[in-house]
Amino acid sequence: MRNTLKYVKDNSGRYVEELKDYLRIPSISTTKSHTKDVANCAKFVASKLKNAGMKKVEIIKTKGHPLVYAEWMGAENKPTVLVYGHYDVQPVDPLKLWKTPPFEPVIKSGKIWARGANDNKGQNFVHIKAVEALLKNDKKLPVNVKFLIEGEEEIGSPNLSQFLKTNRNKLKCDAVLISDTSLFAPNVPTINYGLRGLCYMEVELIGPNRDLHSGSFGGSVANPINELAKLIAKLQDKNGKVTIPNFYKNVVPLTKKERDNFKKLEFSDEKFAKELKVNQLQGEKGFSTLERLWARPTLDCNGIYGGFTEEGAKTVLPSKATAKMSMRLVPNQNPQTIAKEFTKYVKSIAPKSVKINVKALHGGLPCMVPLESDAIKAAARATTRAFGKETVFTREGGSIPIVVEFMNQLNAPAVLMGLGLDTDNIHSPNEHFSLASFQKGILSSIYFMEEFSK
Amino acid sequence: MRNTLKYVKDNSGRYVEELKDYLRIPSISTTKSHTKDVANCAKFVASKLKNAGMKKVEIIKTKGHPLVYAEWMGAENKPTVLVYGHYDVQPVDPLKLWKTPPFEPVIKSGKIWARGANDNKGQNFVHIKAVEALLKNDKKLPVNVKFLIEGEEEIGSPNLSQFLKTNRNKLKCDAVLISDTSLFAPNVPTINYGLRGLCYMEVELIGPNRDLHSGSFGGSVANPINELAKLIAKLQDKNGKVTIPNFYKNVVPLTKKERDNFKKLEFSDEKFAKELKVNQLQGEKGFSTLERLWARPTLDCNGIYGGFTEEGAKTVLPSKATAKMSMRLVPNQNPQTIAKEFTKYVKSIAPKSVKINVKALHGGLPCMVPLESDAIKAAARATTRAFGKETVFTREGGSIPIVVEFMNQLNAPAVLMGLGLDTDNIHSPNEHFSLASFQKGILSSIYFMEEFSK
Repeated sequence: MRNTLKYVKDNSGRYVEELKDYLRIPSISTTKSHTKDVANCAKFVASKLKNAGMKKVEIIKTKGHPLVYAEWMGAENKPTVLVYGHYDVQPVDPLKLWKTPPFEPVIKSGKIWARGANDNKGQNFVHIKAVEALLKNDKKLPVNVKFLIEGEEEIGSPNLSQFLKTNRNKLKCDAVLISDTSLFAPNVPTINYGLRGLCYMEVELIGPNRDLHSGSFGGSVANPINELAKLIAKLQDKNGKVTIPNFYKNVVPLTKKERDNFKKLEFSDEKFAKELKVNQLQGEKGFSTLERLWARPTLDCNGIYGGFTEEGAKTVLPSKATAKMSMRLVPNQNPQTIAKEFTKYVKSIAPKSVKINVKALHGGLPCMVPLESDAIKAAARATTRAFGKETVFTREGGSIPIVVEFMNQLNAPAVLMGLGLDTDNIHSPNEHFSLASFQKGILSSIYFMEEFSK
Repeated sequence: MRNTLKYVKDNSGRYVEELKDYLRIPSISTTKSHTKDVANCAKFVASKLKNAGMKKVEIIKTKGHPLVYAEWMGAENKPTVLVYGHYDVQPVDPLKLWKTPPFEPVIKSGKIWARGANDNKGQNFVHIKAVEALLKNDKKLPVNVKFLIEGEEEIGSPNLSQFLKTNRNKLKCDAVLISDTSLFAPNVPTINYGLRGLCYMEVELIGPNRDLHSGSFGGSVANPINELAKLIAKLQDKNGKVTIPNFYKNVVPLTKKERDNFKKLEFSDEKFAKELKVNQLQGEKGFSTLERLWARPTLDCNGIYGGFTEEGAKTVLPSKATAKMSMRLVPNQNPQTIAKEFTKYVKSIAPKSVKINVKALHGGLPCMVPLESDAIKAAARATTRAFGKETVFTREGGSIPIVVEFMNQLNAPAVLMGLGLDTDNIHSPNEHFSLASFQKGILSSIYFMEEFSK
């Protein structure tokens, strides 16, 4: 291990130069004219995996951009880690806001600046370089390792789900290691162990069969906007709890340990409110902001429209009104079940004076890896060693459908070992990634393989 | 009187021919290319008033289309009636839906078909022909009569209000007679004695300073759409009463006589609901549909928007949401006072977690002429005589700002002696007007002058 660490240190300059080569390839997956660049990028990743000493390196064709696969299975009786990442990047417009060209990486202020520096080239290269350091020095890895680096993440991974389904055996593993999220704060080692799911609904209320004059008809028939407002108002009580029957039935409560963990995090309600320019935060009674964000389900209107929506006044009593509403779900809520309960409830509270149409637009499962799982515990020990600081445990309010897909298809826990920062400008001009994170990420990956092998 | 009535009968053919001439002039006030036609129409009206025997016939220039004024002031010690109407018409598109050309009037099924037949040429010509019949036979009128026929009603009477203000003396009268509304039902003589007013507001709620990801932020900050829904829901109670403090303070209650009058009208809730394709009507508890429409104030959302309003799903927690809400007012509610009470109340119920902006967009006074007023009683006797049937008394849910303007500027009651039918296709292709209504309208006008002179 000492040799491996020395190797990482001695080769850090070359590692950065190679990352620069990786970042020079404009592998924008959404733009047709970059198809060749994306293909070249797959080849680059494959060659780096081969150089690192990985076996069975493959470029796998899909209906879209190729996947890169590799494995090293020489650790008998040891668990298997599947590293997932993506080599494609977001478009770069508006180009004029970039201080340096997006595909000409530069080092400045301890950071590397280029499109993809954080998302996700910098973060997946960490693991390739970790494997290289281990294999060059120990000639073996402490665990079996598989890599699956895709080229379509930025366009929604249209072919990955099918690939997972039909290659469960090939991808079989004991943990999926993903570095595609963020540290809780700069230099704070972070393991994310849960994501919220989603249930997205659309409700349409229909009153009279046509838009009416609000003078000639106002007062005599239900106004679908007023009724929709009443319906939405009834979906939450004064404590911010969702009133849909059975909504909380399957919610896994926060454990004391989780609440203690969240409390330890440096988080200021005041700063959070100030940054959003709101006078006061608001959420479910009895929970802190981080608990509300990470571990409690929500009900938010995402859009509403009806009647006259242009400038000025029109005295219309509209025929219909529509709201888009989504619920963020937490384990073990199920989006299909929640959609059914939602539909049943809103239909039951809508007055007879309007017709109601309810549609489930889409949904996604929440997920959580138990804090006590071997993978999470190993990852936490690894990042603590790499950063020289206690690792914090976070969950995430949003959904990353592909993570849930991995967990469900492969029946393995996901370890979200994010190394970026929320301020790294991913998807924006002047994307960057801290070189310190890059270095500590390589160590975290090495230590994780070691810890997970125990 | 007998001679006058015989004259009307004997000349009915010529009257209709003259109305056809009137209808042949394409006096579309909103279309620039018709400016000359509008001017010619003013000349036509002036010549008909002169032929009828009216004095001081004037074409009065305005910044837009001219007004036609005339008077006959020979009835000493008798009241003065001001007849208001408009000679301009709506555009005719879509032209292809007209069964006969809009400016080539034809008689078919006892109706005259042309743009303006009902609105308002047919209805104002009634009064010109009534005066002609009286003056040709009696050489005098039972009351003093003034005419003010404008050419800009269909574009919102932009110059009339100022003219009323600066010509109060010239227009001084004891009643303003207007035929520009409808009979309650075919062949049912109808006097409308009240209009609702309006107070139109816009409410904007602002949450976070930018649109947020509903996963990363959902549950921690107020969602302006959800909050707007709650706010709207609070504006009415479960009985359909508006909850704004002092809202009903100045409402003139329906009298027993009014409620009895409305009950006598042939009106079916079932038919009304069926026509609007709603399963159930809805309104303020304790009032019938006609009472709700005509004599009770309302609060209707006319428009609402916020967040993502296109097809599909977007997981946004929006920065703001806006609703347009208007209240139909009844005597003696005042739009300014109501706007203030509304603003105060919505600001008091909005949570601290959102900012609120409230704007009063526009307003209009309600109006009502007491059923016991001489003008209304005379008009009712007149229409009863003309139609040979008991006159019904209605109010109107909408607002006709110019009527209120007349009442306020001239301090005289308005008599809304509507002769059209709601099915006459005003503002639409195939506008028409019943020849029976035209005839009975002339008699109603003659009888009104006689009755009002008593």
